[in-house]
Amino acid sequence: MSDKYVYSFGAGKADGTGRMKDLLGGKGANLAEMTRIGIPVPPGFTIGTDVCIYYSRHKGRYPGGVKRQVAAALKQVESIMGTRFGDADDPLLFSVRSGAKFSMPGMMDTVLNLGLNDRSVKGLTRAAGGDERFVWDCYRRLMQMYGSVVLDVGSEHFEEIIEKTKKKRKIRLDTELTAEDWHGVVSAYKKLIRSRTGRAFPQDPNDQLWGAIGAVFSSWDNPRAVTYRELNDIPHDLGTAINVQAMVYGNLGEGSATGVAFTRNPATGENVFYGEWLPNAQGEDVVAGIRTPLPITPRTDVDLPSLKEQMPAIYDQLEKIRSKLEKHYKEVEDVEFTIQGGRLWMLQTRTGKRTAQAALKIAVDMVKEGLIDREEAVRRIEPVQLDQLLHPSFEDSVDKTVLAKGLPASPGAAVGQVVFSAEEAEKWAADGKDVVLVRVETSPEDIGGMDAASGILTARGGMTSHAAVVARGMGKCCVAGCEALQVDYRKKLFRVGRKVIKQGDWISLDGASGEVMEGQVPTRDPELSRHYYILMKWVDQIRRLKVRTNADTPEDSKIARDFGAEGIGLCRTEHMFFEGERINAMREMILAETEEGRRAALKKLLPMQRKDFEGIFKAMDGLPVTIRLLDPPLHEFLPHEEDAVKAVAKALKVKPSEVRRRAEALVEFNPMLGHRGCRLGITYPEISQMQARAIFEAACNVTKRGVKVLPEVMIPLIGTEQEFNILQDIIVKIAEEVMKRRNIKVKYLVGTMIEIPRACLVADKVAQRAEFFSFGTNDLTQMTYGYSRDDSGRFLDEYVANDILPGDPFQSLDAEGVGQLVDMGTRLGRSVNPKLKVGVCGEHGGDPESVIFFHNVGLDYVSCSPYRVPIARLAAAQAVLEETRTTWRDK
Amino acid sequence: MSDKYVYSFGAGKADGTGRMKDLLGGKGANLAEMTRIGIPVPPGFTIGTDVCIYYSRHKGRYPGGVKRQVAAALKQVESIMGTRFGDADDPLLFSVRSGAKFSMPGMMDTVLNLGLNDRSVKGLTRAAGGDERFVWDCYRRLMQMYGSVVLDVGSEHFEEIIEKTKKKRKIRLDTELTAEDWHGVVSAYKKLIRSRTGRAFPQDPNDQLWGAIGAVFSSWDNPRAVTYRELNDIPHDLGTAINVQAMVYGNLGEGSATGVAFTRNPATGENVFYGEWLPNAQGEDVVAGIRTPLPITPRTDVDLPSLKEQMPAIYDQLEKIRSKLEKHYKEVEDVEFTIQGGRLWMLQTRTGKRTAQAALKIAVDMVKEGLIDREEAVRRIEPVQLDQLLHPSFEDSVDKTVLAKGLPASPGAAVGQVVFSAEEAEKWAADGKDVVLVRVETSPEDIGGMDAASGILTARGGMTSHAAVVARGMGKCCVAGCEALQVDYRKKLFRVGRKVIKQGDWISLDGASGEVMEGQVPTRDPELSRHYYILMKWVDQIRRLKVRTNADTPEDSKIARDFGAEGIGLCRTEHMFFEGERINAMREMILAETEEGRRAALKKLLPMQRKDFEGIFKAMDGLPVTIRLLDPPLHEFLPHEEDAVKAVAKALKVKPSEVRRRAEALVEFNPMLGHRGCRLGITYPEISQMQARAIFEAACNVTKRGVKVLPEVMIPLIGTEQEFNILQDIIVKIAEEVMKRRNIKVKYLVGTMIEIPRACLVADKVAQRAEFFSFGTNDLTQMTYGYSRDDSGRFLDEYVANDILPGDPFQSLDAEGVGQLVDMGTRLGRSVNPKLKVGVCGEHGGDPESVIFFHNVGLDYVSCSPYRVPIARLAAAQAVLEETRTTWRDK
Repeated sequence: MSDKYVYSFGAGKADGTGRMKDLLGGKGANLAEMTRIGIPVPPGFTIGTDVCIYYSRHKGRYPGGVKRQVAAALKQVESIMGTRFGDADDPLLFSVRSGAKFSMPGMMDTVLNLGLNDRSVKGLTRAAGGDERFVWDCYRRLMQMYGSVVLDVGSEHFEEIIEKTKKKRKIRLDTELTAEDWHGVVSAYKKLIRSRTGRAFPQDPNDQLWGAIGAVFSSWDNPRAVTYRELNDIPHDLGTAINVQAMVYGNLGEGSATGVAFTRNPATGENVFYGEWLPNAQGEDVVAGIRTPLPITPRTDVDLPSLKEQMPAIYDQLEKIRSKLEKHYKEVEDVEFTIQGGRLWMLQTRTGKRTAQAALKIAVDMVKEGLIDREEAVRRIEPVQLDQLLHPSFEDSVDKTVLAKGLPASPGAAVGQVVFSAEEAEKWAADGKDVVLVRVETSPEDIGGMDAASGILTARGGMTSHAAVVARGMGKCCVAGCEALQVDYRKKLFRVGRKVIKQGDWISLDGASGEVMEGQVPTRDPELSRHYYILMKWVDQIRRLKVRTNADTPEDSKIARDFGAEGIGLCRTEHMFFEGERINAMREMILAETEEGRRAALKKLLPMQRKDFEGIFKAMDGLPVTIRLLDPPLHEFLPHEEDAVKAVAKALKVKPSEVRRRAEALVEFNPMLGHRGCRLGITYPEISQMQARAIFEAACNVTKRGVKVLPEVMIPLIGTEQEFNILQDIIVKIAEEVMKRRNIKVKYLVGTMIEIPRACLVADKVAQRAEFFSFGTNDLTQMTYGYSRDDSGRFLDEYVANDILPGDPFQSLDAEGVGQLVDMGTRLGRSVNPKLKVGVCGEHGGDPESVIFFHNVGLDYVSCSPYRVPIARLAAAQAVLEETRTTWRDK
Repeated sequence: MSDKYVYSFGAGKADGTGRMKDLLGGKGANLAEMTRIGIPVPPGFTIGTDVCIYYSRHKGRYPGGVKRQVAAALKQVESIMGTRFGDADDPLLFSVRSGAKFSMPGMMDTVLNLGLNDRSVKGLTRAAGGDERFVWDCYRRLMQMYGSVVLDVGSEHFEEIIEKTKKKRKIRLDTELTAEDWHGVVSAYKKLIRSRTGRAFPQDPNDQLWGAIGAVFSSWDNPRAVTYRELNDIPHDLGTAINVQAMVYGNLGEGSATGVAFTRNPATGENVFYGEWLPNAQGEDVVAGIRTPLPITPRTDVDLPSLKEQMPAIYDQLEKIRSKLEKHYKEVEDVEFTIQGGRLWMLQTRTGKRTAQAALKIAVDMVKEGLIDREEAVRRIEPVQLDQLLHPSFEDSVDKTVLAKGLPASPGAAVGQVVFSAEEAEKWAADGKDVVLVRVETSPEDIGGMDAASGILTARGGMTSHAAVVARGMGKCCVAGCEALQVDYRKKLFRVGRKVIKQGDWISLDGASGEVMEGQVPTRDPELSRHYYILMKWVDQIRRLKVRTNADTPEDSKIARDFGAEGIGLCRTEHMFFEGERINAMREMILAETEEGRRAALKKLLPMQRKDFEGIFKAMDGLPVTIRLLDPPLHEFLPHEEDAVKAVAKALKVKPSEVRRRAEALVEFNPMLGHRGCRLGITYPEISQMQARAIFEAACNVTKRGVKVLPEVMIPLIGTEQEFNILQDIIVKIAEEVMKRRNIKVKYLVGTMIEIPRACLVADKVAQRAEFFSFGTNDLTQMTYGYSRDDSGRFLDEYVANDILPGDPFQSLDAEGVGQLVDMGTRLGRSVNPKLKVGVCGEHGGDPESVIFFHNVGLDYVSCSPYRVPIARLAAAQAVLEETRTTWRDK
C-alpha cells in the first residue's frame, strides 16, 4: 500500500483536521475543519504539500499512488453531489486552487470550471435553466485560465480577442456581450490555443484536471512566488497543497442564490445575524453592486425581501451554522454562501473585520457569554484601533474630494476655514470660527495659533516634526509633510496642482489617513462606551508596564489622567516659555551677554515657571511628575520675522540690529547636534538653578496645601557621567536649600534622559549616581541612524517603499539597532544600580509594537502623549499575554 | 631589632636601589641609584613610605625605631661631609623634601636650610667667606618655610614683612635688600612666629628636623594633594617618602660654582658635552639670567671662560660622570651640579628634553654606540614631534607680536599678505605674492584660493571644520576658529581688539601653536635628516598596522607615498568637483529635476572624474586605492553669493530665481544628518553608476598602460545592510560590464565606511557582503556624542577646560564610547567574515594615541592626511612595543 497523499472532505466527514496546516495548507485544513464540524462545504479533496515537494524535486513526477487516490476521491465527490465529472448532461465541475501553509495571496495559480468541454457545455446550459450566456462565459473562462496557467499562452492574447469582439460590436463592457458573442470568443480561443501550442484545448476532463494540478504545483516555483516568500521570510521548502473542490453556482435558476454574512453586526457589535443576499446570482454580483443586495433578516427601514422570509428553511439552517461557527471559532465570522438548487453550501468562513466600537462590545459580550476569557478579550483588540474612539472621525459613507495626502501626524478629524498665520488663527478663532492653520512648517512661535485651530496642515516635516509632536500633545488633528502643497503666504493661498485654496475656504483634514479634503466633510464625535471601560479594567489587571504621559500643562495632565496615565513621564519645560510675555523674558535671557543679565531675566521667569509646576503638581496629585530641564538650542526661541525682531528689540531696549546680530551668533549648522540639553545647563548653570528653584518652590507650596508631590528632575542629553554629576550637584544643592528654608521635606529623584548613543554605551558610569533613566528614543533614533527627523522625509519614504527599512523608525522603534542600545543601556545601568527606574518618553511610548519591545526589555514604564495612553495600556497588557514572542535578541 | 625604616645614601654607598620606588618614592630611589653608580650626590637618607602610612593611621605617631635610625643616618652624613648638624662654627644643614612614588609637583611641602639657628648663622657666615647677606637670607628662608609648613603661619604674613621693609627702604627688588635688611627681617619673623603660635622659632636643630618631617608627612593628606591624586588616579594609600639631604652651596667663595648640563647637544643631538656654569653662584642665579652664564667647554664663537679651562679637574670628573650617566641610564641626561669648596656635587639628573631633529640623531647614534637597541630607539621618539620636521616652522629666538590665538588646525608656518576672498588669493598668488587667506569660515567654493594661499586663517570652525580638514589634506598651515577676529569683508579688513589689519598687510601664522602674528616672522625650512630615514626603516620593520593616506589628487598621493603611505585609505570624490568648469557640471546635475537631466550632466562629469582616477591610480601604482562615493549633502555644491547664482543660472540657461528656488529646496535643518552619503546613491542611483563607471574605466585604461591598480570602492554612511547591498549590486554590475567590454580583468573590492552608530550595531549583517570596513571616526564621533563638529566649539572648549572631557574627541579618539563602537563593529564584522579588511579613515588615523587604540583593537590599517603618515607609522610601531598597555576593555 502506498502512503496517503489525498485527503477527502464532504458530507460531514473529512480525512484531515484544522491543525494539519503543514500538510494540507491553510485553506485545505480549514475546509477539513469546517466539514468536520458539520458545515455544508462543497465536497472535494486536498493533495498534500509533500506531493508538491516530491513533484518539484523529481522534475514533475508524482509519488506512486497519487493518481489512484485522486481518482478514488473524485468518485466520492461525485457520489455526494449526485453528478459526474465529465458527464455531458449534468456535468460535475471542479476548481483547482493552491493553498500553502502561509497565505500567499495572488502569488500562485487557480483554474475554475474544470470539466467543461464542447459536449458538457450544452448539458450545463440545460441545468442552468437555459442561461446560455452564463455557461459560455464559464467555458471561455476555463479556457482562458487553463490556457495561461497550464499551456503558457499569455493572458493578454485572450484579452485581445475579447477587446476585438467588443470593438466589432461597438460596446464597452464585458457584461454587454451576448451568449452568441461568448460563443464566438470560445471559437477564437480554440484557434489561439492550437496556433500557439500546436495542440487543441483538451476535451477530456481528466486531462484538464491533471494539467491544472501540475501547473499549480509548478507555480510554487514561479519567480513571483519565490520573491514573495523571500520578502516575507517564508521557507521555500514548505511546498503548497492543492484543493480540488466541486463548483457550485448560485445562479442556476429559482432555488439558487448567493450571499455574505457576519455572525454579529460588524459596525456596532450587536449580537444579530447581519448580511446580504441575492437570488439567482453569483458572489461577484453582490460585490459588483449592479443589483441591490437584499437583507438576510427583515429590516424596518427599507422594504426589501429578506432571506428569512423568502427561504425560511435555508435561513434556519444558516442560523444554526452561525451559532455553530461562533461556538467553534469563538469569534465573529464573515461567511460566504451559495444556494444551488435549494441546497446550501458554505464557501468560506473567516474572522470578521469590525469597527473599534464593535470590537470592544463583541469582546466584552463574548466573555459574558462564556465563549472566551478576559485575556482573550484583551488580546482581541488592536491597540491602534482605539484611536478611532478617542478622536472625532469622518462619517464612512460620504462623498469626499481628496485634494492631497500628507502624513497622518496626529489623529482626528478637523473641519475649518483655511488661515495662513498663527495670528490669523487666533483672531478668527476668537470670532468663533473654526480654522485650519496651514503652514509650510510650524515653529514654536505658532503655538498659540495651533492651539486656536481645529487642525494643522503643513507642507513640510515628518511624523515627529514640530507640528506633529505639538499637535499630538494637544490631541489635535494634524496632517504634516503634505508635499503636494505649494503655500503662498503673500497671496494667502495654497495650490495643489491647478487647484487654488484661498484664505477662508473650507477644508477637512483626516488625521488618521492623512487626507486633505475640500469643503466641510461631516464628522462623528468620539464616545467611550461602557464596554471600553470594562475592557480597560481587565487591561490594567494584566499589564505590568506602567503608562505615563508626556504633558506640559495642567490641562493636558488632566486629560491624560482621565485616560489612565499613572504619572507624567516627560514635562517639557521649554514649551512653557512661548506664551505672551514669557517669550520676551526668555528672549531677554538668551540675548543677555553676561551672567548677570541672564540672572536678571531668569528672575522674571522664575515665578511663571513655579506657577506652571504648581498647576501640574496639583493635577497629578499623588503621581510622579518627571520634569525635563531646558533642552532645545536657544535660537529656537529667537524671533524670526522682522516685526518680531523689532518688538523684542523694543522690549529689551536695544537696537533691532543688535537683536539680529546676537540671534545670528546663535545660529548653528546642525542645531540637533549643537549647544542644547545639558550642555546649556553646564555652560549657563544659572538656567538650571532657576529651574530647580522653580520646581522645588512649587513642590513646597503645593505640599503645604495638602498635595502629594513626587518630582523627578530629568537632565537631558547626557553623553558623559561628568555632565550628569555636575548638574545633579546643582539641583540637589538648590533642592535642599529650598526645602530647608521652607522646612518641608519632599521626596524627589534626579535622573537623566538617555538619548545620545554614547550614554547607552557608558550607562554603567552614569547610573552610579542617576536615580532614573528615561530613554528619549526620538533623539536616540536620530543619532543612531544619523537621520535628522526634520530632513529625512527626502529619502525615508523611498526607503520604506523599497523595503530598505521595514517602516519609519521614528514611529515604530528600530529594535535591531536603536533597541539594542536601549537594551544595552538598561542592562548596564541596572548592573551598577539594580533599583534604577527605567522608562521611555519618546514618541515610541505610544506605539504598540514598540511598547511590546519595551516590556520585553524590562522597562518600568512608557510615557506617551495623552491620547495614546489607552493604546499604550492595551499594548502593555498584550505584551504580557505575548511574552513568548521572540525579541531581537533571540534572532 | 626593629624593622628598617631609614635608608642612607652617600659616598658611593646606598641602602636602597633605583627599583625601590614603592618604598623610597621616585626621588629617594633615584638618589640611591645615583649614589650606587658612583655619582657624587650630597649624602642623606630616605624615610620610607611605610612610615608615612603608619604616621597617617596613628595620628602622627612613628613606628618604633624610626627616631633611632634617623639619628644613626644623620651621624653617617656628618662623617661624609666632615661637618656636624647643629655645629655653631661650621654647621651641616639639611633639606627635607617629600618624594612619592608618582611625581606630584608642588603639591607637598619642603623645608630647606634646616639646622640654622641664631648661633650657627654666624658660623656659616664665616664658612661663606663673610657673605652675611646670603647667610641671613638663608636663615629667613628657613624661618619662612618652617613657619608656614610646620607652624601653620600663613606665608602672606612673612611676605608682608619683606614688603614693608622694601617700602621703608624705597626699593623694589628683593635683591636690593642688604644683609642688614635681612637681619631686620629675621627679627620681625621671630616676633611674628611668637605672636602667632605663642612659641619661639625652635633653635634646636633636632626639633627643627622632626617638626619638618612631621609636617611633610602630614602634607600627604592636605586638600591640594588629595585633589591632585583624585584627578590623576593616584591611590591615596601609597604614602610619601621623605628625603633628608645635606645642603651644598655653590656660592661659598672661590672654589664654588654651580651649573647645568646636557650629556649631548639637545638642539642638534651632537655627541658633545653641552652646558653652562657660573662661578660662586647658586643654581637660581643661572636660571634667573641676571649674570651671563659661561660655557662648560670652550666655544669658538664667544670668548668666555669655560669650566674646562677654569676648573680642569672638576671638568674631568664631570666628563666621567657624563659618560657614566649615559651608560647607566642609556639616555641623554640633563644634570644640575654644585661645586662647594672645590668639591663636586651632583644635585639632579633627569632625561634631557630635545628637539625632534636631535631626538632622531641621538636615538640612531645610541643604537650605533650599542647603548640601546632599535626597538628602544623607536620607543624614544614622540610621534607628534615629527611634525616639526615635516613642516616649516618659525625660528625659536625671534621677537614676535602675537595678535590672537586660534586653534592649531594644520601645522606649519605661513607668512603672507592678507586677502579676504578666494578670488583675490588666486589673483595675488598668480602675481607671485605670498598671501594668507582670511575668512570667517571657508566653503568648498574657496578651494582654489586655499590652494593658492600660503596659509589659511578662519574666525569660526573647529579642528575638523572645512578649512582645517582641507588644509591638513593639502599640508597647508591653517589656524582656525580664531574667535577674537572680527572680519569685515566689505571694508577688506579684520580687527583684533583695537588693532586693524587691512588687505595687503603682512601676518604670520603658526599652525603648530595657533598663534597669529603681525608682520613677517622669519621661518625655517623643514629638512629630513639621514637619521630620520634610518629610524623610519626600523619603524616599518616593527609595526604591523598598515598606514595609508587620505588623498584626493595625484599630487597629494605622491607626497603621501614619499612619506611612506601604503595606499590610499580615503579618496574623497566630492573634492574633485569644485574646480573651474566642473563645479558648473556638478551644479547642473544637482539642479536638474529629472533623472534624464541628471544623467546628461553626469555624462559631462564622467570623463573628468575618470581622468582624476587615472592620475591617482598611476601615482599609487601597485598600491590599493579606496575611493569613496559622493558623500556630502548636495547643497554644499550650490552657489551662495549673488554673483555665483547668476553665473550658474547663465550656465544652466535658467533664471537666477529658479536657481535660488531649487537651492532653497535643498537646504536642510541638520545637513549632517540629512540626505547625503549612500542615501544620495540610493535615491539617485545614476550618480553611483557614473562614479563606478569612471572608476573602472580609469582602472582599465591604466592597466592597459602597465599600471597595477587595486581599486576599493567605498560606500559611505551605511546604516542598514540593505543600503549596502543595493549599492554593491549597482557597482558590481557596472564594474563587470566595463571590464567585459574592455576585456580586462581588474581585482577590486566593494566595502563600506562605518560612520553611523547603527552600522556598528549591525556590522554582522553588513559584513555578510561587504569586503572591507573603514571606520569614519569623524562622523562616528559626531553621532555617538551628538556633537556637530561645526558647532561644538561653543561648549567643547569649556568641557575640556573643566575636565568634563579628557580632550577634544575629534582629535583623539574617545576610546570608552566611540572606541567601544569601533571594537564592536570590528568584532561583529569579522564574526561573519573573518577575512574582512578593517581600517579607519577619520582624522584620528593620524593621532598617535588613537593609532595605538586602533592597533590594539586589531585593525588592518589607518589612513591619515599625507603629512601625518610618518607620525602614524611611528605610532603604529610603538603600539607593537607597548602591547602590554591596558586598553579600555581591561579597565
